[in-house]
Amino acid sequence: MVEKKSFKSALIVNPGIEQPSSINRDALQRQRKHRKRTLSPEQYFEGIINGNIPILSQAITLVESSLPAHHELGQQVIEKCIPHAGNSLRIGITGVPGVGKSSFIEALGGTITSRGGKLAVLAIDPSSERSKGSILGDKTRMETLSSDPKAFIRPSPSAGSLGGVARKTREAIILCEAAGFDTIFIETVGVGQSETIVHSMVDFFLLLMLAGAGDELQGIKRGIMEMADMLAITKADGDNVHKANLAKAQYESALHLFPATESGWTPIVRTCSSLTKTGIDVIWEDMLSYMHFTKGNGYFQSRRLKQATFWMHQSILESLKEDFYGNPAVKTALKEAEKDVIAQKISSFAAARNVFNRYRNQ
Amino acid sequence: MVEKKSFKSALIVNPGIEQPSSINRDALQRQRKHRKRTLSPEQYFEGIINGNIPILSQAITLVESSLPAHHELGQQVIEKCIPHAGNSLRIGITGVPGVGKSSFIEALGGTITSRGGKLAVLAIDPSSERSKGSILGDKTRMETLSSDPKAFIRPSPSAGSLGGVARKTREAIILCEAAGFDTIFIETVGVGQSETIVHSMVDFFLLLMLAGAGDELQGIKRGIMEMADMLAITKADGDNVHKANLAKAQYESALHLFPATESGWTPIVRTCSSLTKTGIDVIWEDMLSYMHFTKGNGYFQSRRLKQATFWMHQSILESLKEDFYGNPAVKTALKEAEKDVIAQKISSFAAARNVFNRYRNQ
Repeated sequence: MVEKKSFKSALIVNPGIEQPSSINRDALQRQRKHRKRTLSPEQYFEGIINGNIPILSQAITLVESSLPAHHELGQQVIEKCIPHAGNSLRIGITGVPGVGKSSFIEALGGTITSRGGKLAVLAIDPSSERSKGSILGDKTRMETLSSDPKAFIRPSPSAGSLGGVARKTREAIILCEAAGFDTIFIETVGVGQSETIVHSMVDFFLLLMLAGAGDELQGIKRGIMEMADMLAITKADGDNVHKANLAKAQYESALHLFPATESGWTPIVRTCSSLTKTGIDVIWEDMLSYMHFTKGNGYFQSRRLKQATFWMHQSILESLKEDFYGNPAVKTALKEAEKDVIAQKISSFAAARNVFNRYRNQ
Repeated sequence: MVEKKSFKSALIVNPGIEQPSSINRDALQRQRKHRKRTLSPEQYFEGIINGNIPILSQAITLVESSLPAHHELGQQVIEKCIPHAGNSLRIGITGVPGVGKSSFIEALGGTITSRGGKLAVLAIDPSSERSKGSILGDKTRMETLSSDPKAFIRPSPSAGSLGGVARKTREAIILCEAAGFDTIFIETVGVGQSETIVHSMVDFFLLLMLAGAGDELQGIKRGIMEMADMLAITKADGDNVHKANLAKAQYESALHLFPATESGWTPIVRTCSSLTKTGIDVIWEDMLSYMHFTKGNGYFQSRRLKQATFWMHQSILESLKEDFYGNPAVKTALKEAEKDVIAQKISSFAAARNVFNRYRNQ
């Protein structure tokens, strides 16, 4: 377990991660210009496969950028990195705010790096209500992990379309894997559509839960529980242990009633405490068992391939939709059509046909 | 309860429903030609709102037709019917083969019509593995309902794309409602993607289950249980009653752990027997309670409107995809791209961009 104390200021986040622009905008601007002039795709690639964290971080900034030149350069770096990517366990972690996600990631991350693993923590948060300030807060909450040289924490790309954020995150995974990270966490808040997105880019999906099956569940979207390969009940310490064990038994019997998973893996329920570190090691061993199991039965690789083609088609769909919905004539026609559909003047399908014809025949 | 015996041959299905073409193809052909010559959109409309079942049935055939002239005529009829549609409770019913869906529909349908309701039974079965023979089998299994003048049973439109079948079914709902049917069943097999489709076109979703939570569940796709407003455990008669009650208790405690529904409705678990008719009335009363409850809190109407706009956008998406994937240049480029993605030569996103550019710039 990594237990060394960080002596850095809480404002200094991971080495190599850009500081929030509010801290030193001028320096950052100069740095950015500097980067653009000096690094070629080859240099980015070299830096990344040598595990150079500042260069990895810059490359992620490129793929996240909306500037066409940056985007193009980012794509070239991605193409070079792809043959070196894929060698990791990708883990999705979700749970409602208050479940203790940051502390959990800090604790599990410590277990992983202390056993020699290299961990990258990425986040998907498309409908971002989090300010820059609270992202910083997240990272300071992961104080030990932030100063761990074997860990790399990258805040969520700034809010955009779900498709856009998904692309950026999937490309960040490729870059991190090429840089030698063998465990990737994709963190998300369990309240929106982002879980489905995360689920379709990871190997293992973990749902963090609070003990007590009542109100705490309200925030979780239906369907998420059935995607989970593991439920972990957090904060199982002190007075909470009994309640957590009770919840565990309840969830176990509930999961038992769920249909079988495609992977053949039976979802597990665990209790854990990020405070006392109880149950954290077991969770990591479960994840390794899962990887071993699904690599053994071929599911791991077949799912990866399915995900890759899924994302290609998903991305095509995004382009088709952008082209359509971004069209000015469509925008006008659509407003009318929606009004007519809601007023029951026209069927959904006839309305769709009218708008589509307007699009095709212009 | 309608208990009168049907004296018709098992081959004679609902009055007004077309016979399978094998029975009397020539007569059918003549009838079709006759129809085309004689009925205008106004005549179809008049017939439908007067509850003329043969005309309703012909109109459904029009919207199901792939002939452009029929399709166009069908759309005109739909437009006329839309203002008269919507006044029904739309119920989705799913369950694996063997759960006793036909007998259940027969029993529940009897309850509904004996209480003065008018029931239309439609089916969605896109990946149709059922032969014409077994559709006929289904209808003969619903022998009482088939001869009930207040019931209208319509087999699934012949296999097509999920989107195509969805459109046909949604349009059939409109026509049936305009014809005065106040309860619509949409039946589907709980093994594919069709449940999600059905779920997005109904007000209430019922999952039929067999007692015993083991192997019987294997066929049900994960996520379906969480869509259900009610679980009904079938075949709760004779030796099976105890097992069914046990399963009921188990599912109840499992559902209790599920997150709250958007409607505010708490999903119910019931046991029933189509044989002894036990529990069937209660299920119908539950459905009415649901309608009352969701009409009271505004969810019923808001969901209908959401579904209508959802289907408009869904239909647009279908058109965009057809146009793209039907394009010969795209087909060629896509084959290459998929190979490269799977061989990890190129990222999913770059591959998508390449194919999309080929499509746009031709």
